[in-house]
Amino acid sequence: MTLKIYLSGEIHTDWREQITEGAADLDVSFDSPVTDHAASDDCGVAILGEEADKFWHDRKGAQINAIRTRKGIAEADVVVVRFGEQYKQWNAAFDAGYAAALGKSLIILHGPDHAHALKEVDAAALAVAQSPQQVVQILRYVLNGSLPG
Amino acid sequence: MTLKIYLSGEIHTDWREQITEGAADLDVSFDSPVTDHAASDDCGVAILGEEADKFWHDRKGAQINAIRTRKGIAEADVVVVRFGEQYKQWNAAFDAGYAAALGKSLIILHGPDHAHALKEVDAAALAVAQSPQQVVQILRYVLNGSLPG
Amino acid sequence: MTLKIYLSGEIHTDWREQITEGAADLDVSFDSPVTDHAASDDCGVAILGEEADKFWHDRKGAQINAIRTRKGIAEADVVVVRFGEQYKQWNAAFDAGYAAALGKSLIILHGPDHAHALKEVDAAALAVAQSPQQVVQILRYVLNGSLPG
Amino acid sequence: MTLKIYLSGEIHTDWREQITEGAADLDVSFDSPVTDHAASDDCGVAILGEEADKFWHDRKGAQINAIRTRKGIAEADVVVVRFGEQYKQWNAAFDAGYAAALGKSLIILHGPDHAHALKEVDAAALAVAQSPQQVVQILRYVLNGSLPG
Amino acid sequence: MTLKIYLSGEIHTDWREQITEGAADLDVSFDSPVTDHAASDDCGVAILGEEADKFWHDRKGAQINAIRTRKGIAEADVVVVRFGEQYKQWNAAFDAGYAAALGKSLIILHGPDHAHALKEVDAAALAVAQSPQQVVQILRYVLNGSLPG
Amino acid sequence: MTLKIYLSGEIHTDWREQITEGAADLDVSFDSPVTDHAASDDCGVAILGEEADKFWHDRKGAQINAIRTRKGIAEADVVVVRFGEQYKQWNAAFDAGYAAALGKSLIILHGPDHAHALKEVDAAALAVAQSPQQVVQILRYVLNGSLPG
Amino acid sequence: MTLKIYLSGEIHTDWREQITEGAADLDVSFDSPVTDHAASDDCGVAILGEEADKFWHDRKGAQINAIRTRKGIAEADVVVVRFGEQYKQWNAAFDAGYAAALGKSLIILHGPDHAHALKEVDAAALAVAQSPQQVVQILRYVLNGSLPG
Amino acid sequence: MTLKIYLSGEIHTDWREQITEGAADLDVSFDSPVTDHAASDDCGVAILGEEADKFWHDRKGAQINAIRTRKGIAEADVVVVRFGEQYKQWNAAFDAGYAAALGKSLIILHGPDHAHALKEVDAAALAVAQSPQQVVQILRYVLNGSLPG
Repeated sequence: MTLKIYLSGEIHTDWREQITEGAADLDVSFDSPVTDHAASDDCGVAILGEEADKFWHDRKGAQINAIRTRKGIAEADVVVVRFGEQYKQWNAAFDAGYAAALGKSLIILHGPDHAHALKEVDAAALAVAQSPQQVVQILRYVLNGSLPG
Repeated sequence: MTLKIYLSGEIHTDWREQITEGAADLDVSFDSPVTDHAASDDCGVAILGEEADKFWHDRKGAQINAIRTRKGIAEADVVVVRFGEQYKQWNAAFDAGYAAALGKSLIILHGPDHAHALKEVDAAALAVAQSPQQVVQILRYVLNGSLPG
Repeated sequence: MTLKIYLSGEIHTDWREQITEGAADLDVSFDSPVTDHAASDDCGVAILGEEADKFWHDRKGAQINAIRTRKGIAEADVVVVRFGEQYKQWNAAFDAGYAAALGKSLIILHGPDHAHALKEVDAAALAVAQSPQQVVQILRYVLNGSLPG
Repeated sequence: MTLKIYLSGEIHTDWREQITEGAADLDVSFDSPVTDHAASDDCGVAILGEEADKFWHDRKGAQINAIRTRKGIAEADVVVVRFGEQYKQWNAAFDAGYAAALGKSLIILHGPDHAHALKEVDAAALAVAQSPQQVVQILRYVLNGSLPG
Repeated sequence: MTLKIYLSGEIHTDWREQITEGAADLDVSFDSPVTDHAASDDCGVAILGEEADKFWHDRKGAQINAIRTRKGIAEADVVVVRFGEQYKQWNAAFDAGYAAALGKSLIILHGPDHAHALKEVDAAALAVAQSPQQVVQILRYVLNGSLPG
Repeated sequence: MTLKIYLSGEIHTDWREQITEGAADLDVSFDSPVTDHAASDDCGVAILGEEADKFWHDRKGAQINAIRTRKGIAEADVVVVRFGEQYKQWNAAFDAGYAAALGKSLIILHGPDHAHALKEVDAAALAVAQSPQQVVQILRYVLNGSLPG
Repeated sequence: MTLKIYLSGEIHTDWREQITEGAADLDVSFDSPVTDHAASDDCGVAILGEEADKFWHDRKGAQINAIRTRKGIAEADVVVVRFGEQYKQWNAAFDAGYAAALGKSLIILHGPDHAHALKEVDAAALAVAQSPQQVVQILRYVLNGSLPG
Repeated sequence: MTLKIYLSGEIHTDWREQITEGAADLDVSFDSPVTDHAASDDCGVAILGEEADKFWHDRKGAQINAIRTRKGIAEADVVVVRFGEQYKQWNAAFDAGYAAALGKSLIILHGPDHAHALKEVDAAALAVAQSPQQVVQILRYVLNGSLPG
């Protein structure tokens, strides 16, 4: 069994690297959005031309990013969505809802402070983890049946 | 043509009433989540028994609420998602993603301050409105072809 | 909002009557399998002719019953599956799996003794109830937002 | 033609080994749940933290196991479900229902004593076998057209 | 429970009337193809203009008939397919395959002489009947739980 | 049998009226896009605010119109697409492709001059008509089995 | 582009060999049912045990064959269905209907004598060929754009 | 991440070559219709025999071409549709609608003169480009996150 994983959400810490490195020995593949914040914000106008109105500047970029996001989620077996300490992160919650409607196995990753605010998102998940290590342990168990320690 | 509308998101202002009253003459029906905040938070334990751990208290409630939410979104032609001025509102963004994946026509309703943070959500929508009146005008036009003014 | 409910599983107690009577004031409709045990077992041969081999006797009946069961589950918003104190009840678990794969909202109804053996089934449900009264309370809350007491 | 097989159900005898060894010369691949009973029961709390309540202990584990089970069934061409002599085995019947709703080719494997209790499950199957050898013979015939003897 | 029935196949005997009259007291509705043989053969050219080539004469008619057939099968809960004593009746077998792929409950109706030639079709059905009366008895049992005699 | 018809395409002649009046005695219902050209072009900015750039002016309008178009096509049994003598009419061809991918029964209505340019569109249709009267005759035959003359 | 082809229908002439040999230079793969008539008829009882009643003898075999047939059709891009000069061949028409409902590209292969009797089947196809050579030419054109002669 | 791209539409300029050459260093694969205009028009009669009526000449060809087109679109992650300066190009708009209904990521490529006439098509797209270079830049960004300049 090979698992395809999509890593959605927060882009300001190294949680993706922790997971991909921790899972280096497993039969998994990872996709994720473009995590270069500036490129992600400006890709639309950089390629398709400037917009006077910030709303359409954002629209052009968000739609190009959607090409990658939709493909990544649609092909994934497991979608991991990370909520960090800051920012609205509505795109993360949107991805979680999108993945849930497609019947993907969801793992939500966040600290305990966010538990109440994320209760509807967590309730759609098959696991709620607090650390990237736990996500790696889940993947290892799902693939190999081996538990930590 | 009859339109079924699901009104998701913020529960602390009267935007739902503004839309349902404004659309009283139209061939529409509306559904929405339970908007009694306390009942929504506590329904799980009130019916199925207390939980010592707040995480499971929330889980029980969120899953019962999901019976209503999933039905409402699945049967809707149009899903309107309102983002208010406060709170994380991750469940609103989750509903938007869920509805988008099902191919529902999305209308997102929020003030201009949230535009950048909601750009991925807006990019999946067929309309981004700033007021409940605009939502009513969209519904009126879609059903009857008549424009304001 | 109207909810269509399918009541699957145990046929030797009056749990279906308790739910339908308790929900008499709600905007719900109920379907269920044929609950006459003898008719359910023998319908195949009674209509389509005797079989010398009990295996095909059972097959003929089970397939005719499937016409009703599949229709009932396919059209339901909520599938309630009751596991009683006795018997194997594999058809109940089969219905639960069938409903889960179709994305139906599942409510599982059983006593605490079965909790460990039913953990995979419960894990696919949006609620696990111990009494028909709790099922009625869930339906009432989902439709009207009102909680017991 | 390559067949992907998912082997669901009983974990206390060597039926999976008999099938995989018997089919060693065929163009097939096999997946199955984690069959280490203790690991399967405890994976949730071992990774995500202890629970005071056995119900949630079980829930956490069952949901992590569901990541593997759903993937295995969703990708299978053929789902073989084995019912052994003991235990409730409701998860096996749940898997059978889940696979049936997805339109998978089902092979049910059980002794003659369970025939009546499994009649609804058998009625959804394309074959009902009594021995792992028969399952191997079916796979061999489906792939190569060759019959035993 | 209301059942929608589509009556496909042979058009030269009164089996449809026998079923609809026998089921007059049941909560069912019936659809069927146009059973006027000449109109069915010639509808294409009668409406859309003559064709010099019989192949296209037939094509035009068959495609207009498909508007009705597809709708009838797509909306049915149960598809009854009757194979008579004469003719190739490939359209009946085509409808059976079409209905099977859509997951409809199939009832095949034919005399014992055709059993071997129809074995693949019968194997996709939930019931194989020999008389219209048996079909009525199945519908009555499925809806009301009552058996003949 | 009731047929739901969506009338897509050309808005400068009275073909829709000819069909709806001709079919007044049939068990059909009709939907269509907003056919007021000016309203259709300007609905976006009239409701959601002016745009400096014509491209976004058009986008806002086209997306609001899509709420109606998608609903109309998604719920239709039959989609009739009319290509008139003038204009690019790419939205008509887009609707035809959209309907074809959803498996709708397509009737294409156009004069003989367009036949070669529309060959791919016609090839996806169940009927190619040259006059609204022919469309009415098709609907009458499909519903009642009666042919003209 | 690689095409997966399923070759359904008549098993008494060498049409499959003509196609596979003619297409030996193309980027295609072929699947087909078991074409050993005796094995196909008897596989059920040979593996799963004798039946006293020929009806169930046939049922057991037809269902095992269905494992291969369903997989072959479900994975195919193109389904070629051959109707020969003799026999009822209802399984061929059933496969055609099954493939049509799944949206597969259908090529029907038969002599001119069967044209009227197969008009509904032909009407669901993208090509109606009279010789295996024409099927090969279609595959060659679809893949490479090259035409005969 | 690998992207499968289908290049639909105009066949009289070298835009496909510009894209495939520009993307030569990317993890992409391309499919397209047969772009030999004469072969595309005449493939039906060249293989399956002459037709006296041009309408059926066109039909035979269009349906054979549909085998390739449907496969190409169905397997694509991204469908690029190019509208050139001339011709009706209804098949291009049809492909765009077809792809949109399947939920494919659409990129529409056309000059500014066509913007108003293509507003409904553009509104279904994730990007509207004016040059093949922009399409290449989008693919490069989506795959690698790198922007031009």
